[in-house]
Amino acid sequence: MSDPRPALLAVDMQTGFDAPRWGARNNPAAEGNGLRLLERWRKLGWPVILVRHDSTEPGSPLAPGSPGNAFKPGFAPLAGEWLITKRVNSAFIGTDLEQRLRRAGITRLVVFGLTTDQCVSTTVRMASNLGFAVTLIEDACACFALRTFSGGHVDAARLHTAHVATLMAEFAEVIRTEQALLLN
Amino acid sequence: MSDPRPALLAVDMQTGFDAPRWGARNNPAAEGNGLRLLERWRKLGWPVILVRHDSTEPGSPLAPGSPGNAFKPGFAPLAGEWLITKRVNSAFIGTDLEQRLRRAGITRLVVFGLTTDQCVSTTVRMASNLGFAVTLIEDACACFALRTFSGGHVDAARLHTAHVATLMAEFAEVIRTEQALLLN
Repeated sequence: MSDPRPALLAVDMQTGFDAPRWGARNNPAAEGNGLRLLERWRKLGWPVILVRHDSTEPGSPLAPGSPGNAFKPGFAPLAGEWLITKRVNSAFIGTDLEQRLRRAGITRLVVFGLTTDQCVSTTVRMASNLGFAVTLIEDACACFALRTFSGGHVDAARLHTAHVATLMAEFAEVIRTEQALLLN
Repeated sequence: MSDPRPALLAVDMQTGFDAPRWGARNNPAAEGNGLRLLERWRKLGWPVILVRHDSTEPGSPLAPGSPGNAFKPGFAPLAGEWLITKRVNSAFIGTDLEQRLRRAGITRLVVFGLTTDQCVSTTVRMASNLGFAVTLIEDACACFALRTFSGGHVDAARLHTAHVATLMAEFAEVIRTEQALLLN
């Protein structure tokens, strides 16, 4: 049996991303937009999936046991919602996410979270390549500036724009929170 | 038994990417650099893996039966080399690539090809998340300009830079062809 309802999948909305070590971020509205999406999904009783990164990297603020492993306020799973814990970027590797989605008949995923270019992009790419219909909520994602290969720097807004462009070209429908609140 | 030799994995070096529909590209040297890598691997007798995209998208120049499905000159597999055909971006989805690598004891992958942001990035991400040690050859990859979500445009060089920065931050060691020719 297929479930016609899109599942909301929130990637790594954890307090560890507030640590200074990540550098300059774009889109401070991502958390607020994510909470509006969650509130809507919870009101409708649609499937909600919260993904948590349990980093195995020594010293990572996202490591289990570190305070930064915790979900940001409002993003912890409620009763009946799925908690998926992962150790790598893709929420589909080393987890039972794919099997659970297939078993539940869920074919549509609405994805947002942290960070646009790393765990969000990797999860969206795999979801799409595995045959799920993916919608990415652009203004509920954010990322951090990075060093480039040639020793320069790419700021978070440009990095976000480039990665969303690629996801839009090949892997996902891309919309804003306002539009996602009208999905049915 | 583990094979200490790094396998060279070339992604989608197909003539269909010469079609005008893809738009403006960066790094015209990618093919020449890729051929130097292949020549080196072949001389050493190290494992070589050629990945071909058999697009299922109607009208795609990469579709089987279309002339653009063919490998660019020099990139077709020789006797003993692996041909991996895929229908999605990741060379690990819908293929036996992971099983073949495990069976052969290959743990190190040196990756290049087309396009940086799409099939190369998706394959590098999955390889890394599956536990393979990945080296990306920056100057043997290329991509095409894209439209952005806000209706703007990101040129191929900037797109390439942003995507390589993310892969370098989290998924792969990134080096140039000259350095890869010294690997042992």
